[in-house]
Amino acid sequence: MAENKRILLASRPVGMPAADNFRLEIAPVPRPAEGEVLVRIEMISLDPAMRGWMNEGTTYIRGVALGEVMRAFAAGRVIQSRHPAFADGDYVSGLLGAQSYAAVPARLLTRLDLSLGPLEWHLGVLGMPGMTAYFGLLERGKPQPGETVFISGAAGIIGSTVGQIARIKGCRAVGTAGSDEKCRYLIEECGFDGAINYKTEDVEARIRELCPKGINILYDNVGGDILDIGLAHLARGARVVICGAISQYNEPTVRGPRNYMKIVTARATLTGIIVFDFQERYPEAVEQLSKWLKNGQLHTRTDFVEGIENFYSALMKLYAGANFGKMILKV
Amino acid sequence: MAENKRILLASRPVGMPAADNFRLEIAPVPRPAEGEVLVRIEMISLDPAMRGWMNEGTTYIRGVALGEVMRAFAAGRVIQSRHPAFADGDYVSGLLGAQSYAAVPARLLTRLDLSLGPLEWHLGVLGMPGMTAYFGLLERGKPQPGETVFISGAAGIIGSTVGQIARIKGCRAVGTAGSDEKCRYLIEECGFDGAINYKTEDVEARIRELCPKGINILYDNVGGDILDIGLAHLARGARVVICGAISQYNEPTVRGPRNYMKIVTARATLTGIIVFDFQERYPEAVEQLSKWLKNGQLHTRTDFVEGIENFYSALMKLYAGANFGKMILKV
Repeated sequence: MAENKRILLASRPVGMPAADNFRLEIAPVPRPAEGEVLVRIEMISLDPAMRGWMNEGTTYIRGVALGEVMRAFAAGRVIQSRHPAFADGDYVSGLLGAQSYAAVPARLLTRLDLSLGPLEWHLGVLGMPGMTAYFGLLERGKPQPGETVFISGAAGIIGSTVGQIARIKGCRAVGTAGSDEKCRYLIEECGFDGAINYKTEDVEARIRELCPKGINILYDNVGGDILDIGLAHLARGARVVICGAISQYNEPTVRGPRNYMKIVTARATLTGIIVFDFQERYPEAVEQLSKWLKNGQLHTRTDFVEGIENFYSALMKLYAGANFGKMILKV
Repeated sequence: MAENKRILLASRPVGMPAADNFRLEIAPVPRPAEGEVLVRIEMISLDPAMRGWMNEGTTYIRGVALGEVMRAFAAGRVIQSRHPAFADGDYVSGLLGAQSYAAVPARLLTRLDLSLGPLEWHLGVLGMPGMTAYFGLLERGKPQPGETVFISGAAGIIGSTVGQIARIKGCRAVGTAGSDEKCRYLIEECGFDGAINYKTEDVEARIRELCPKGINILYDNVGGDILDIGLAHLARGARVVICGAISQYNEPTVRGPRNYMKIVTARATLTGIIVFDFQERYPEAVEQLSKWLKNGQLHTRTDFVEGIENFYSALMKLYAGANFGKMILKV
């Protein structure tokens, strides 16, 4: 008989999450109320932003409550619809949580068109990470042909998509990543103009070499040292787009960007990207991204971990930067 | 017989400047070349930005060379003009250096209209600090009526001017200062809606009380803790204008704003103000500011120190925040 395996937030992490911050619970499969849809989840997305969701209080979204199912984007198939907008067998995604079944109001679901790409892409390049890359670069970074876009955490799903869109828009793309293999991937598959292994190379010297006219758009996913080095090399009129700060999420106190005065002297601007602000324009981005995927201008990778029981180890793989491509937990 | 007393940069400070970073030199009064103007300096402006000028290398302006006269805004009277644009007796200002006489090309001078206010105002509210306040608030902050403007270092010449312009534009003005006397000045003379003594009060609790709807414009002169607390209270869509970071200039390593992710979640923007970018519009600002001064909507204070020999102690007074009003060294 079917059962719902659910990952609950058992306690709040201090610094790096520990295994006992989560608890696996076996619950009955929920029954959808009128207007709700029951989804059998096939894939759960693991995202850096999850660390923030584990904290108490509200930033752009409220923290997950203790004892609640861990918030997660997920995708799966409708097995019982009690809303006219969805039929059994439809593929859907949404904030369905880290569990194997979810019964949710229809308005929280997005119907997926698998002709655009496999299910996992709808949690990656065609899902929130892709939307974040697309609107963060185009609407916040406002790239102009010939400019240099510097991307930290460039081998991640957001970073690699940002760099490729930058190339499509006529910019140069330079990024940092944590292994030679990832750097090769950026150059050979994603068409980056330069890739820096921040673990083994002198990032400052390499930026000087790869961005001789300075950085016009700094798309930052990591914070910390790399953000500081990037700031030091801003070109006049640069745009800094803060997307994430994965190097800082698990630190007890965040280290702020020491070189922030460079924003002043470079006449630069710093803003952030919260993808939900562009919700109404997701369809436009999905259409454009899938065109680029189909015509081979855009590449993407997925890193699968199997089994919902492995939620914690998959999350740790993400925070250790040991993943290669979009982290997906297969239920 | 007249002599030129000059303050030279003798060595580069590490952290807080020491007395022996400067050297007083007695030199002959310079003779103006063709096209130059000889100015007898009456007042020298002491500005927080001087600390940056003492460093090696170039940011928005090159560092002062060792053995060179310390860069300073100054004002005085033309005693010998070899350029048709200036006549003996004219009052002028410019980057004339920390010295008692300067012979400079005419194009580096601004003629002063003393009917607009006394000479010291032309180094303060009608000079660079006033221009910085005016364009920083209006062009970078873009205040809208009803918004709350939070100003750190509010009792300084820039901060107090920013707050008063904010009031004139229909905003609420709340600022921090380092003594009860300065806080009273902000409320009683400058018309601020709130003033926080950051040395004795709980800044966070007071901001919560004085900015219940959050901060729409954060005009930062200080950096460090107060910037962080201000960031934590940004309202949605806030503009952060970085003008200076006096708390950090003399620190061996700058502490970056730990709460910078709040810029992301608040959908805020961070920019800086470099006053030289608005050079062509100075006359417009001087005209407007002098109108406000004349009709009593704008107040300003000067803190005089006498004697060019006291350059170093006056500078230290500024960095200690012990000044009350625009610091001016009378030659």
